[in-house]
Amino acid sequence: MPELPVFSQENVFAAIAPGEAIERVREGFVEYAAGQWEMPPKIYLEAEPHGDFRAMPAKGGGLAILKWVTSFPGNPSAGLPVVMGMICVSSATDGKPLALVDVRSVTALRTGAVAALAAQELAREDASSVGIVGCGLHGAWAARCLAAAEYGPGVCFDPHPEAAGQLAGELGWEAGSREDALACDVVTCVTPGAEPVVLESDLRPGLHLNMLGADGPGKAEAEVAAVANAELFCDEWQQASHGGELTGAVEAGVVAEADVRQLGDVMTGAAPGRSSPDSVTLFDSTGLAIQDLAICLALLGAHRSGAVHTTTVRL
Amino acid sequence: MPELPVFSQENVFAAIAPGEAIERVREGFVEYAAGQWEMPPKIYLEAEPHGDFRAMPAKGGGLAILKWVTSFPGNPSAGLPVVMGMICVSSATDGKPLALVDVRSVTALRTGAVAALAAQELAREDASSVGIVGCGLHGAWAARCLAAAEYGPGVCFDPHPEAAGQLAGELGWEAGSREDALACDVVTCVTPGAEPVVLESDLRPGLHLNMLGADGPGKAEAEVAAVANAELFCDEWQQASHGGELTGAVEAGVVAEADVRQLGDVMTGAAPGRSSPDSVTLFDSTGLAIQDLAICLALLGAHRSGAVHTTTVRL
Repeated sequence: MPELPVFSQENVFAAIAPGEAIERVREGFVEYAAGQWEMPPKIYLEAEPHGDFRAMPAKGGGLAILKWVTSFPGNPSAGLPVVMGMICVSSATDGKPLALVDVRSVTALRTGAVAALAAQELAREDASSVGIVGCGLHGAWAARCLAAAEYGPGVCFDPHPEAAGQLAGELGWEAGSREDALACDVVTCVTPGAEPVVLESDLRPGLHLNMLGADGPGKAEAEVAAVANAELFCDEWQQASHGGELTGAVEAGVVAEADVRQLGDVMTGAAPGRSSPDSVTLFDSTGLAIQDLAICLALLGAHRSGAVHTTTVRL
Repeated sequence: MPELPVFSQENVFAAIAPGEAIERVREGFVEYAAGQWEMPPKIYLEAEPHGDFRAMPAKGGGLAILKWVTSFPGNPSAGLPVVMGMICVSSATDGKPLALVDVRSVTALRTGAVAALAAQELAREDASSVGIVGCGLHGAWAARCLAAAEYGPGVCFDPHPEAAGQLAGELGWEAGSREDALACDVVTCVTPGAEPVVLESDLRPGLHLNMLGADGPGKAEAEVAAVANAELFCDEWQQASHGGELTGAVEAGVVAEADVRQLGDVMTGAAPGRSSPDSVTLFDSTGLAIQDLAICLALLGAHRSGAVHTTTVRL
């Protein structure tokens, strides 16, 4: 077997700036919406009571990837990350392994990127201020990507004030209350989804909500009534209706597939976006393997051009 | 991230002898049959016209693994293997990545091991001679594992006589015709499954057949009439009925689930084995992620005890 490049977290963040991540992930959504990229449903492997593993394949742009990633919510109390694993990258033409990639950095970049993309597609034309609810790893990368897309300044809220203060300081934004964050134009929630942080009473004309935290059954960041009263968008209907922010409203019978548009279809013009400046729009991000694939394509391109140097591994 | 051991092909073959592979894979079948190990269905990602990728997760013995493996049948004409990829091994307790493992060596060992296990469970008590039909990588490892389980000597047949001669020479067996191989007690077929190598007229009392080659829709190594006239066993019913040797007979309506027993159930006593010394038994191996998991458990044990030294990778 040939030597494979191994992209560490440092390699990924050095090679792909937030602005490039946004553009590459946009290409991924467009290619997938156009039927050029493929993505079988992810497999869950339960590891109760600790968490679960997910196997997420995707194919496109000459590559086939397999993301093997955990969600172990209790891990931080033991000093371990919630998200661990790796991404195997192969040639779709001959099956040859091409690279091994750190999963946390790619997940953070592609999750942050979709927050910026959804704002570009769905927020009011004149939207600028950003509210971040939940300033962990993914909240921070959503804020960085929104800033790279020229949104902001914003308000960062977290139950741990030091996390909010650190992120606000990095971006020149402010730390504030949940209510301060919800008063902004583009509100991005990245919490564990254990209890609602967006209430029906928080909705006001022109608001755009990115809901990034709910990524499995039983998790939700908004009250069902808040979801039911917004114009609804998601990354992919099957995932969003079964393990995303929309799931509770679907199960309650107040939201059906016809009420929800997919982001890639809005990008290609196959579906409309926000209906008026005064609408409330809500985007449910569950996280797609095509987003990871888009970042991996960018990484291999950067490696080929000599822009990033990695260690290697021989199997 | 900590450094992960990387088990190369050389490491795998040095650490796990065929006899140990057989015993470890046996444990895997028993644990799975007893409900202790889990294995969600594998996902196929098509890469037409070249081949396909498979994502195969499994959990047990404190580990969770994900096998990412190709089948690109035309690859040898370009000097590349049919089977490529890697196995990611993680802790099922905290999700931490623990190892990266070469996929070809593990696949060869676990596929060979099941040929020996099926013979031990299903062949006549006095069976000894072995016929190998197809002397490629997996045929060779099946022969080595059968020899390690004290079957043999045998007859090796391959359309490429040099492959048959080389394997026969290694084991002190003989090269011969398809008919010579089919006249043995334990016949193991490992061909691409493009055309039948076992005809109804080949069946005779007391024969045991291991069918290892058919691993996807449209592939078969035996005539449907041969399958229909044997006592049938498989590794796992869902896989065998949808993408294994049994699939053609199931689709023709001549074999149903009640006609087929799973190897693990025979091992635990939950299902009977061969009904009489004069029966013909046929075992359909489609390849299970629990077999790979069993080998990975053995590898990590060998590594912990210092019996194998590997390179490492840091993500």
